[in-house]
Amino acid sequence: MRIQDYFKKTGRTMTDNNVKQALIPEGGIVLRNDRGTAPGCIIEGNNKIFIILPGPPIELNYMFEHQVKPYLHRISKDIIFSRVLRIFGIGESTVEDILKDLIQDQNNPTIAPYAGYGEVTIRLTAKCHKEENPLDFIEPVEKEIRKRLQNAIYGIDDDTLESVVGNLLIEKGFSVSLAESCTGGMIASKLTNVPGISQSFIEGAVVYSNDAKIRRLGVSPCTLDRYGAVSAETAKEMAEGIRLASGTDISLSVTGIAGPGGGTSTKPVGLVYIGVAMKGKDTVVHKLQLAGSRERIRSMSCLHGLNYLRLALLNVE
Amino acid sequence: MRIQDYFKKTGRTMTDNNVKQALIPEGGIVLRNDRGTAPGCIIEGNNKIFIILPGPPIELNYMFEHQVKPYLHRISKDIIFSRVLRIFGIGESTVEDILKDLIQDQNNPTIAPYAGYGEVTIRLTAKCHKEENPLDFIEPVEKEIRKRLQNAIYGIDDDTLESVVGNLLIEKGFSVSLAESCTGGMIASKLTNVPGISQSFIEGAVVYSNDAKIRRLGVSPCTLDRYGAVSAETAKEMAEGIRLASGTDISLSVTGIAGPGGGTSTKPVGLVYIGVAMKGKDTVVHKLQLAGSRERIRSMSCLHGLNYLRLALLNVE
Repeated sequence: MRIQDYFKKTGRTMTDNNVKQALIPEGGIVLRNDRGTAPGCIIEGNNKIFIILPGPPIELNYMFEHQVKPYLHRISKDIIFSRVLRIFGIGESTVEDILKDLIQDQNNPTIAPYAGYGEVTIRLTAKCHKEENPLDFIEPVEKEIRKRLQNAIYGIDDDTLESVVGNLLIEKGFSVSLAESCTGGMIASKLTNVPGISQSFIEGAVVYSNDAKIRRLGVSPCTLDRYGAVSAETAKEMAEGIRLASGTDISLSVTGIAGPGGGTSTKPVGLVYIGVAMKGKDTVVHKLQLAGSRERIRSMSCLHGLNYLRLALLNVE
Repeated sequence: MRIQDYFKKTGRTMTDNNVKQALIPEGGIVLRNDRGTAPGCIIEGNNKIFIILPGPPIELNYMFEHQVKPYLHRISKDIIFSRVLRIFGIGESTVEDILKDLIQDQNNPTIAPYAGYGEVTIRLTAKCHKEENPLDFIEPVEKEIRKRLQNAIYGIDDDTLESVVGNLLIEKGFSVSLAESCTGGMIASKLTNVPGISQSFIEGAVVYSNDAKIRRLGVSPCTLDRYGAVSAETAKEMAEGIRLASGTDISLSVTGIAGPGGGTSTKPVGLVYIGVAMKGKDTVVHKLQLAGSRERIRSMSCLHGLNYLRLALLNVE
């Protein structure tokens, strides 16, 4: 019935296949699918529990979060609670070295460092009775880790660099604009995924060609001629140009060589300049030499850009 | 030794942990890691083969592609070959219905439809001797599927909507510009990930505020006032505005309500307008009503936008 309604609502035809999706095993507890039509159910018996979930990730995740998790919590005595600390700008081995003694003595919580994409995470996992508060176990260890890693920790759990930067902008009432060359809109795309960001995010310019850099951002043709599109000078003018044009408090620019082509001996693939312009402050340009595929250079530029924005925002009142 | 060189080259310090990474089991075949320092090796013996690979995805993928795959090919007699057909704009159940008889009679190749993120894929898998050509099995079935699904198939294997659109633009010598509101630069970001796109991609504008729509794209304040920022009229002016400003052959605009806030009864969350402007043709505006989270509405808008660009480009000589 619910599935019939779903098809009616979305104006699509119900096929034989969709009818098949409505069938579940005898004695099973039906899990409602609020995100599609694939079936899910729980079958209890013989000291074993089978949980059958849909394949499509959207349907699976939603059903797990909203129905399986509460179910598991209800039937369990102990709880396992994890907090993830997210780190940008230091490698996994270095993090492990800094935390060596803590990792060797770990017990409850356990401490698990992990090298993710362009970041390192540390998962702290506490196990305790349902009545205890797992944070009582986690917080003293977290405090010690924070003392050692400081600003390199940008967030916890589901935080992303963009959600942290976005929320800093919103909290501080700072408006922001972006001028992206090699990242091609990736930073704008990430930042605008933060709910509520429309009050801070004014404008992004994806300026691939020299012509667009001149026309849209007012970068001087002389600068482009003399230093090239990938240079500290151009990054500076890009950041200042978009900030002035859009009238924002802060702006970020990125220009670099993402490859696979376009590199030279003096300006190899992976060379990236990132500019941060802020009202009342001198514009700062950071130089990076990144490695890997085009995609990796672009996404690492994006993460570094967001991180420089974060660090700049942490330094303002 | 190679790992020592790597640290020298990247100017980082080698920790105890990195020294440990250089150790491998006796008799193991070392897999070179050209993307990092984590170890990998193959151990053969007792009719079993153990392949140990690094954890970091970048290092794992590269090592698998460049060393494990050729190794497996060398030691195998039969081959299993898959081709994936990628479909946009039709749901999985509908695809299964259209191909019902083919799926029921499948043998070699097998036919496996799968609902991916915003798309449906069909994996055709042929099994044959090393000396046979697996395409002889796959191509007749693929031809029949293409006859039925036509333009809904946008590519194969690792193709993405952006790589297909990017290559169409490059092949046809078409220049392109983008004006994005709710997608916030996501389309620019995807399109600029295509190598060689710099010859076609001129400029993208991420115009979140009304002010930026007026200032950057020349959208009329009257239009915004009368129809709102999310309207067919605004989408049309955005597409035409960016095309004129950047002087491109074709342009794409997206404006919509990504949510979670901002929806009304007449303009609910998920309402999206996509405009395609092309020289010598009337501008076309498509209206979509999408569902799901902010992230899903944004990324589906992005995929639909790329698909409308693709369909428009397929229709030009």
